[in-house]
This record gives sequence, C-alpha cells and structure tokens, in this order.
Amino acid sequence: MQIENILKEMEKDDCQGYLLTDFSNIEYISSYRPTSFAFCIIKENPIVYASKMDMEIAKNNSRITVREYEDFKTIINDLKNENIKNLTIEPSLTYATYEKLKNDFEIESKTYINKQRMIKTSDEIKNITKATNIAQKSFKQLDITNRSENENILAFELVKLMIENGASKESFDTILVSGSNTSLPHATPQPKPLETPILIDWGCVYNGYCSDNTRTIVYTEKEHEILDIVKQAHDKAIEKIKPGIQCSQIDKTARDIIAEYGYGDNFIHSTGHSLGLDIHETPGFSYRDDTIIEKGMVITVEPGIYIENEFGVRLEDTVAIENKGKVIGNLALW
Amino acid sequence: MQIENILKEMEKDDCQGYLLTDFSNIEYISSYRPTSFAFCIIKENPIVYASKMDMEIAKNNSRITVREYEDFKTIINDLKNENIKNLTIEPSLTYATYEKLKNDFEIESKTYINKQRMIKTSDEIKNITKATNIAQKSFKQLDITNRSENENILAFELVKLMIENGASKESFDTILVSGSNTSLPHATPQPKPLETPILIDWGCVYNGYCSDNTRTIVYTEKEHEILDIVKQAHDKAIEKIKPGIQCSQIDKTARDIIAEYGYGDNFIHSTGHSLGLDIHETPGFSYRDDTIIEKGMVITVEPGIYIENEFGVRLEDTVAIENKGKVIGNLALW
Repeated sequence: MQIENILKEMEKDDCQGYLLTDFSNIEYISSYRPTSFAFCIIKENPIVYASKMDMEIAKNNSRITVREYEDFKTIINDLKNENIKNLTIEPSLTYATYEKLKNDFEIESKTYINKQRMIKTSDEIKNITKATNIAQKSFKQLDITNRSENENILAFELVKLMIENGASKESFDTILVSGSNTSLPHATPQPKPLETPILIDWGCVYNGYCSDNTRTIVYTEKEHEILDIVKQAHDKAIEKIKPGIQCSQIDKTARDIIAEYGYGDNFIHSTGHSLGLDIHETPGFSYRDDTIIEKGMVITVEPGIYIENEFGVRLEDTVAIENKGKVIGNLALW
Repeated sequence: MQIENILKEMEKDDCQGYLLTDFSNIEYISSYRPTSFAFCIIKENPIVYASKMDMEIAKNNSRITVREYEDFKTIINDLKNENIKNLTIEPSLTYATYEKLKNDFEIESKTYINKQRMIKTSDEIKNITKATNIAQKSFKQLDITNRSENENILAFELVKLMIENGASKESFDTILVSGSNTSLPHATPQPKPLETPILIDWGCVYNGYCSDNTRTIVYTEKEHEILDIVKQAHDKAIEKIKPGIQCSQIDKTARDIIAEYGYGDNFIHSTGHSLGLDIHETPGFSYRDDTIIEKGMVITVEPGIYIENEFGVRLEDTVAIENKGKVIGNLALW
C-alpha cells in the first residue's frame, strides 16, 4: 500500500529508483527497522540492503526483498543491470552517499515518502493513542507532587513506569526539571531536589510509534499567571485546527495570544510538530510551514513562555486531525 | 587548541570556511552541545549559529562567538561579506544543505575534524575512563546472576545504577538479553525472564564521553566452549594493538582465530570502533579500515560468535592506545 502510492508518484516524474537510508523510512516501507547501516531502493522490484549483522531480523520482518549489503559497487551494478539511469535521493541523505552515486546516475533530490507519512492510517493513530495512554497513565502513577527525590531519579522512574505499562522505551530523553532549569526548553534533569515550577515533557514508544506531552506544575502567583496565558494559547490553537487551513495559521493563533500579554519574545520555539515513527516529523505548526492541514495528520500543540534565569512554562498535547482537531488522551492530568 | 589545528590543515588546502552541523562536532569545537538545529563555521573568526531556543545554553557554554540562526540566507550573506568564496562541508552533511550552498560557494567535501577527534587528549581519556568505571561498578551492583526479573526491567535497573553512580545517561540503548535473543548483535531486552546465556552490552556517558563494554554469562558446555573461542580472539587482538600497524590487522587477528575454529561465518560484524563524544567514531577495527593506529586513539575490541536461533556470545573492552593497547577499567567483572 505505502509502496504503491509512492511508485505512482514516482511514475509521474519518470523516476526509476528512489533511495532511502533513514531508519524510520525503511521501517515504514519494509516493516524491518535497521539497527545498523541499511539502504532501501523503491522501484518496480523494491529491495532493502541490510548489513550482515541485521540479516536475521531483516529476513524475519521485511515485507520486501532483502539482500545483504556488501559495498556500494554491488548496489550500483545491481541498479545498472536493471537499466536504471536516474535515481531520486532523500534530501536527508548524506553528501558522501550522493558523491558515490553521482557519476553513475542522474540524481534528483525529492521526498516522496514524507507526504505519505504525514497522513497516518487508522492503525498508526491507534499506536500513537496507545503510546499516549501508557505515558499518561505512568505520569499519574508517578505522582511527583509529594516526592522529594532528585530530578534525574524521578525522570528515570517515569521511564520505568512507562516500560512496565507496556512501552518499549521513552520516545525522547525525558525532561523532568524544575526551578530555573525550566527556562531551557530542552533542559536535562539534574541530580538535585525539585523546586518550583516542575516541568515534565515526556512520552514513550508503543509498537514503533511515539507519544509526546508536556505539563507544568505551578505554585507561585507568577507561575500561575504565566500558565494561564500558555493555556489560553494552547486551547485556542487546538480549537482552530481543521483541515484546509495552513499550519502557520495555528502557530500564529498561539503566538498572537502570548504576544498580546507581552511575552512574544519569550515564546522561543514553534507551536508544534508532527509525530509518528519519529518524534519530530513534518509538517509543524511553525510560521515557516505553509502546509495545508489534512485529515489523518497528527501534530502536537506546545506553546511555552520562557523567562531567562527565572522559569519556563509549557503545555503540550497531541492532536489527531479529523473534521477538526481531536486531542489524543486526557487533557486534565492532575 | 582544537580549532587552531584544524585551521592549519585548512590553510594548506586554501580552504576559507569549514561547515559542521553534527552535534558532537559542534560540542567538540565550541563546548556547547546543541539541542536543536545548529551550524558551526570554522574560519578566521569561528562562529556557531544556534536556534532561538538554544541561545541561553549556547551563550553560557560556547568558547566561540554565538549568533542566532535566522535562515540560510543570513548565513550566506554573512559569509559573502567576509569574502569567503569556497566552503568545505562535512561528508555527513545532508544533500539538502549542500543544495542550499552550492550556487554561492565552491564546495569541497572533506573531514578535517575526524582526524583531530581520533586522537584523544588526556582529559578526554580521563572522561572515558570515568564513564567506564561508573558502568562497571554499576554492573557489579546489579548482580543479575541471582535475579529472576524480566530482561527489560533488569536493563532498566542497570541504567538507573549508572545514573545514581554519576553518569548523565546510558551511552546507547542498553542490551541485556538472554537465550536465543543473544544471537542478534543489537537485540532489544524483552519483557521475559532470563534464560541462558545472558549477554549484557552496556555503557554510560560521563561529562559528555561514552563507555562501552560487553560481557556474556555462560552456563552450558557449548556456551562455555564458544566463550573460550571469543575470549581467545579478544585477548589476542588486544595483545596485538600498538601504534604503527593498520586497524585492519587487529580485525584480522580476531577473525582468523574465530575462523580457525570454524565459526568465521558467525562473526557478523567488525572487531571494534572508536568512541568518545559519540559511541561510534572512526577508526574501527574492520577489514575495510586501513588507518594506522596512533597513540591517543581509544578503540573497542568486541569479537562475537552468533549461532542463528540458538545463541550468541560477545566480549567487549575499550582499549586506550599508548605504547601498546591498555584496557580501560577492569577485565574480570565477575
């Protein structure tokens, strides 16, 4: 199914072969997730080249033909033997790989697969939902509000709970930070006891698919005030989501509210990103992204306000797009 | 210091600017580790472009000038204003980035930094040694031989011990697997109780630097027999390490021993890899790698034998190269 759609798009461009090396792309196409260097070539007879050490799992899991990777020359010869004269490469391919191919093929750079991966199937949405449910259940079980342990140990316990509840792993390095550490959007949990506010940005992987949520637990009046603004931006952005409008419009909705309160310069990242097999996928709710929202997309909404050397607040939910935006999981987590 | 050496090499090639995007390369040069998209340009006045959300940590940590990344056009204009006409890009740069630069500059692809990162300073070796000591101490504390918990929970406890002992995180997804699961070199710990043999491939990060070890705990006669062969390959390879010979020679030493016993086809990966800020660096002990071993390199030795559907055995230590190879940490871990 995935391959057929891509082959149709390729045919329109007279593209004879399409080369992928990104592990998630290869998993999406073949069901085999590489653990070391691998190549997938989509063409009439699609093929994945796996390293010797991956041959056992590749053979067990792949829906498409698997061959052992020996060297580049073999791949080039295989393609030439099939009379392939042009190749399309993923824009994320390394320049080094391009250099190995450029003398033997006409090379174009274009992504056929991202467009396909943007629109999730109902199975993919089920997996994202299950991952979200596991992560949120684990968050409730952790109950950090009554705990005096160090940030890094609590972050760790949250991951353990997610694994015990059925996740295969965390979907990114868990952020469970507090005090002035919260003013960095990608802060690292430290070996120090919790201060206020407490910001938790966490998620897990279920059946290959990611979840992503953020909550900030506030205590002081100023922390409450900032959270209220962030919550307004979060809620209004989610309300506005529907098929047919541009992603940048959702970013603008959140950004305008935060700017109205005078914190425009303190919202230092975009409003959200898609997720799926990867934690960061396209499109995103960014002022730069004019992608039209479509049914089947799954995108986070995560406005934040960061006050340098004081604290930061962020609130994040994952939204599945149907006729309008539908939040996955439970909005109220405490 | 790092930059001066690279600038000297660049000068020999009349290279006016050298572009890096890899996070570890940027950390190596600037001491700032990006948490999102960043660029480093090494030139007379080196500069790192950080995203808005990274500006606080970049300003706090970077040894070189930091500017906020706005868009590619700004970078291109900045470079043109400095009269820079040619740029060298890392071979690992994406094709998409190359495309954005190719019309404005003469582009060469070459790695100046890898050669530098291959040779560790005494501070770097201290960090790797500390990471190894933390990981090995944690392994002893776990004492899995008397435990009946599931693989994934035990893997998890090992990571927790490493963090409690001072590591910032695991250096790669911890492999703590058993039974037939050990026949996959990169297996994932499962929610199932331990069988035999038990293979643990683990490591942690201390002050940015990685450690890496593998031990296999064997029980049956056949498991013992295979471990003995792997141990011979491991020991002989380490004995042979010294400055002046090719990396491929060390791979050959280990491979020949395993082949002698008839298991040549079951040694399905190379004998080792360098480590440092990244868990996999160059050079490696591979039949493909003819790099001459030099003082200051830090490379793992990890021969293995994998019998499909039965079990696998691997033994791994990290070797710092002085006048000969010196194993970091403790060889006998149980």
